[in-house]
Amino acid sequence: MPRYKLTLEYDGTPFFGWQRQAGQVSVQEVLESAILGFSGERVTVQAAGRTDTGVHARGQVVHADFGKDWPEDTVRDALNAHLRPHPVAVLCAERTPDDFEARFSATARHYLYRIINRRADLALERNRAWQVAVPLNVDAMHVAAQALIGQHDFTTFRAAECQAQSPVKTLHRIAVMRQLDEIVVTCSARSFLHHQVRSIVGSLKRVGEGKWPVTGVKSALEARDRARCGPVAPACGLYLMRVDYG
Amino acid sequence: MPRYKLTLEYDGTPFFGWQRQAGQVSVQEVLESAILGFSGERVTVQAAGRTDTGVHARGQVVHADFGKDWPEDTVRDALNAHLRPHPVAVLCAERTPDDFEARFSATARHYLYRIINRRADLALERNRAWQVAVPLNVDAMHVAAQALIGQHDFTTFRAAECQAQSPVKTLHRIAVMRQLDEIVVTCSARSFLHHQVRSIVGSLKRVGEGKWPVTGVKSALEARDRARCGPVAPACGLYLMRVDYG
Repeated sequence: MPRYKLTLEYDGTPFFGWQRQAGQVSVQEVLESAILGFSGERVTVQAAGRTDTGVHARGQVVHADFGKDWPEDTVRDALNAHLRPHPVAVLCAERTPDDFEARFSATARHYLYRIINRRADLALERNRAWQVAVPLNVDAMHVAAQALIGQHDFTTFRAAECQAQSPVKTLHRIAVMRQLDEIVVTCSARSFLHHQVRSIVGSLKRVGEGKWPVTGVKSALEARDRARCGPVAPACGLYLMRVDYG
Repeated sequence: MPRYKLTLEYDGTPFFGWQRQAGQVSVQEVLESAILGFSGERVTVQAAGRTDTGVHARGQVVHADFGKDWPEDTVRDALNAHLRPHPVAVLCAERTPDDFEARFSATARHYLYRIINRRADLALERNRAWQVAVPLNVDAMHVAAQALIGQHDFTTFRAAECQAQSPVKTLHRIAVMRQLDEIVVTCSARSFLHHQVRSIVGSLKRVGEGKWPVTGVKSALEARDRARCGPVAPACGLYLMRVDYG
């Protein structure tokens, strides 16, 4: 069974998240239907990150086994034809060794969170970013975020429904940058807890608007208490950008 | 009658262009309805650029007269509240002298055209860019475009239905740049002919894919013949970015 690594882009808006669920349209279901249409095979695909409802991807990675050794470009183009009109695209299809696992072989995941910091409603970025009307101090947010780098118990920034065995994760890097009225938070780790990025961004927003001191994020982290987390940032601003392997 | 300058962002996808037309939803109509909802006045607004169906704006400028001297922030916030749920936002509202004309006072208009140059369908940029699958040579496109700078008879790049009195326009600047798989064409002029930017981009694409020589755009310009224009690029990639005054 030749195994393929597929790199996906999708608009998360119309989907009930990545994972297949009865009675809901998920990215997984749409991709598995496209594979069925292409090869006639019922395949279960595995993804590097099980994105939530409304979360986008520019570089989600999945693996899937096919019954035949198709050319890579054929797989990409045929799946894209079968994915229409859903806003899901296969950017790249590559043959991989049989032991490649999209989820378990990943060595780093990179997320990006977009905030549009302005009074006016979003028109072109609707469902693509979080609009925050109150002016945010990006330098304070960046400094506050640095306290999260390294290995920590991230219980404060973890959803109640998180299924990870341990709340201990290692954040490789996090940065907050502004370009005109857009603020971008980028962060990288081997893996993340459920809602971890959105919980962190929601807490950084409290710092940015001056409701928390710059040290507030560090205090919240050290409290290991979900009640100390800021309001979770909405899904529409979050993008799974890239997954690294090997 | 206090006059206001409004700077607008909009997603052109659901609109039948800027201009009010019977039986169609236009940006103008939606804005005039919002003004009616806010101030109770039936106002006719004038825009700097009458964008076509599907064309977007990040900096469209209009002027409108109100019966009362409202604070600028009130005008912006109230219009945005009345514009919902349409993807149109007032970024800025400013009191202007009574002789300010959004269309006739403009000294420069800046457009941007986005091409995503890749095989895969667009997911996140659907209706926001033109997907071109064949690899484009951006350097050739940029060099070809420079022949358009200055004052010329742009008959070749003018729609049949263009209502301008003269086909002679002065293009201040045009540039073609690539960042990863995105190609951006930016151009500036005091004013443009109908379909001029999309006609130019469609012709530059011919150069980029090698079907026209680099000199092909100059030859087409000099022919002053609409039949020599490349296929007009689709509306969804075009953005009215900014309008300058004074």
